[in-house]
Amino acid sequence: MKIVECVPNFSEGRRMDVVERILEAIRSVVGVKILDSSSDASHNRTVVTFVGEPQGVKEAAFRAAQMAAELIDMENHHGEHPRIGATDVIPLIPISGVTMDECVELARELGQEIGEKLSIPVFLYEEAAVKPKRKNLANVRRGEYEGLKEAIKEPERHPDFGPSQMHPTAGATAVGARPPLVAYNINLNTNDLEIAKAIAKTIRGSSGGFSSIKALGVLIEETNTAQVTINVCNFREVSLARVFETVMSEAERFGVTITGSEIVGLVPMEALLDAATFYLRLDGFQPDQVLEKRL
Amino acid sequence: MKIVECVPNFSEGRRMDVVERILEAIRSVVGVKILDSSSDASHNRTVVTFVGEPQGVKEAAFRAAQMAAELIDMENHHGEHPRIGATDVIPLIPISGVTMDECVELARELGQEIGEKLSIPVFLYEEAAVKPKRKNLANVRRGEYEGLKEAIKEPERHPDFGPSQMHPTAGATAVGARPPLVAYNINLNTNDLEIAKAIAKTIRGSSGGFSSIKALGVLIEETNTAQVTINVCNFREVSLARVFETVMSEAERFGVTITGSEIVGLVPMEALLDAATFYLRLDGFQPDQVLEKRL
Repeated sequence: MKIVECVPNFSEGRRMDVVERILEAIRSVVGVKILDSSSDASHNRTVVTFVGEPQGVKEAAFRAAQMAAELIDMENHHGEHPRIGATDVIPLIPISGVTMDECVELARELGQEIGEKLSIPVFLYEEAAVKPKRKNLANVRRGEYEGLKEAIKEPERHPDFGPSQMHPTAGATAVGARPPLVAYNINLNTNDLEIAKAIAKTIRGSSGGFSSIKALGVLIEETNTAQVTINVCNFREVSLARVFETVMSEAERFGVTITGSEIVGLVPMEALLDAATFYLRLDGFQPDQVLEKRL
Repeated sequence: MKIVECVPNFSEGRRMDVVERILEAIRSVVGVKILDSSSDASHNRTVVTFVGEPQGVKEAAFRAAQMAAELIDMENHHGEHPRIGATDVIPLIPISGVTMDECVELARELGQEIGEKLSIPVFLYEEAAVKPKRKNLANVRRGEYEGLKEAIKEPERHPDFGPSQMHPTAGATAVGARPPLVAYNINLNTNDLEIAKAIAKTIRGSSGGFSSIKALGVLIEETNTAQVTINVCNFREVSLARVFETVMSEAERFGVTITGSEIVGLVPMEALLDAATFYLRLDGFQPDQVLEKRL
């Protein structure tokens, strides 16, 4: 079965009746399942996670964007998180039986539909980006809703789909495709924050480490222990095992070790099967050997 | 979702039309799915693997036993594999969301139904055994179909359900519950069979190793390498990681190492998640964090 995940962000985190109607729009598509919805009042933003087959996910994302455009007025929106529209971003994520290319194609179809049918300017970002600069979502969001009202008229800020002017209430939307992200924390047997910071610096792409890894060193107050907190942005490029082994090796250089690790939230089965395959040195293992995959 | 696996063995491996009708009987239960069926002509025996929710699996196993009793005449059965009846054994295996105790209860319900409705004597074995000796299937099968015709009249060989005399054509059936079995082979960078044998002896229960491990040392002719071939009979007692690490440690003692390992056939997801959890030192990981489990 082909499974795509979609994690749209909506610019409403306070009026729960509005959030509920957006969730209803998603649920109205048969076969689509909402896994999570979390609203943040200070960000005034709601992040929804849902999954389903590609066409169902596209339809659900469209209906949600349509509903958000009806119910959210960006002229009255205030919140701490950067945003450009009522439906701020819609990332599509290949989970199972689907390639990244298929998700890119799906994102472009979805973007075109939102642009043309809802008259909302759509920017393609990350893997779905047509303009290289838009791979980085921050470039798309520059100026936010308020600034983009003028900037969108400049040719280089023209949207990929829809009109080159902001929707009067819904603003604009960024639609993209990206690999599944795994939030992964590794705990050290030290309270020396500097060690966690040094290890984080070693592994993260922005300072010369793995390009698909983001990492910070933090001190966990409850346990008074240092932690390397990591976003594995593409576990197919850098597996959890490689992250773990690299952190282990760097920790040893400081005379400390790993007491444990934790996965925050959901993780695709493949990321954990990869780790089992690596450590058990499994040859020729096929994911469909997993009994549950046959059901 | 509660998932039980059932691996019944039928005393027919030559007449494929008979096998097909037994498979049809299983398929006739909605929600039950056949994962595999393999027939062996010299054993004159067919092993079917199917899965489903507990009540569906029980019903499918009953219908299959009923069909086998109609179509297979043990008076005319010859084959190399020990057997006591048309439906020789029916093991029930907890896969997901089901405890062993639930499978034991299910096996006893199924045994009672086969005994009473089909007048076939039923022996409960392995985890479902009521009489301790019957934990070992070999004790139930002693004398096979032919010998059991007389032996079943002795009080200590009386069945747990059904009449104390063999069904005139279908014989008797053993119904049991057991943990999932993982067939796991570990390859060494040597062609010294004695090393593989020595390692196998170290890890297997019958010679003082892990009680739920069966293991042999063999030489793989195609690659001319020694292999430890293992049945992990209860991966919840002895994980794949512990098996791997023990074999690794023993191999090093002989100056050899592990080149790779392989899982033969199907494996429950939990067995591989265990390995990932062990090596990544995952704390507080819950199987329902696996995205696919939410679908």
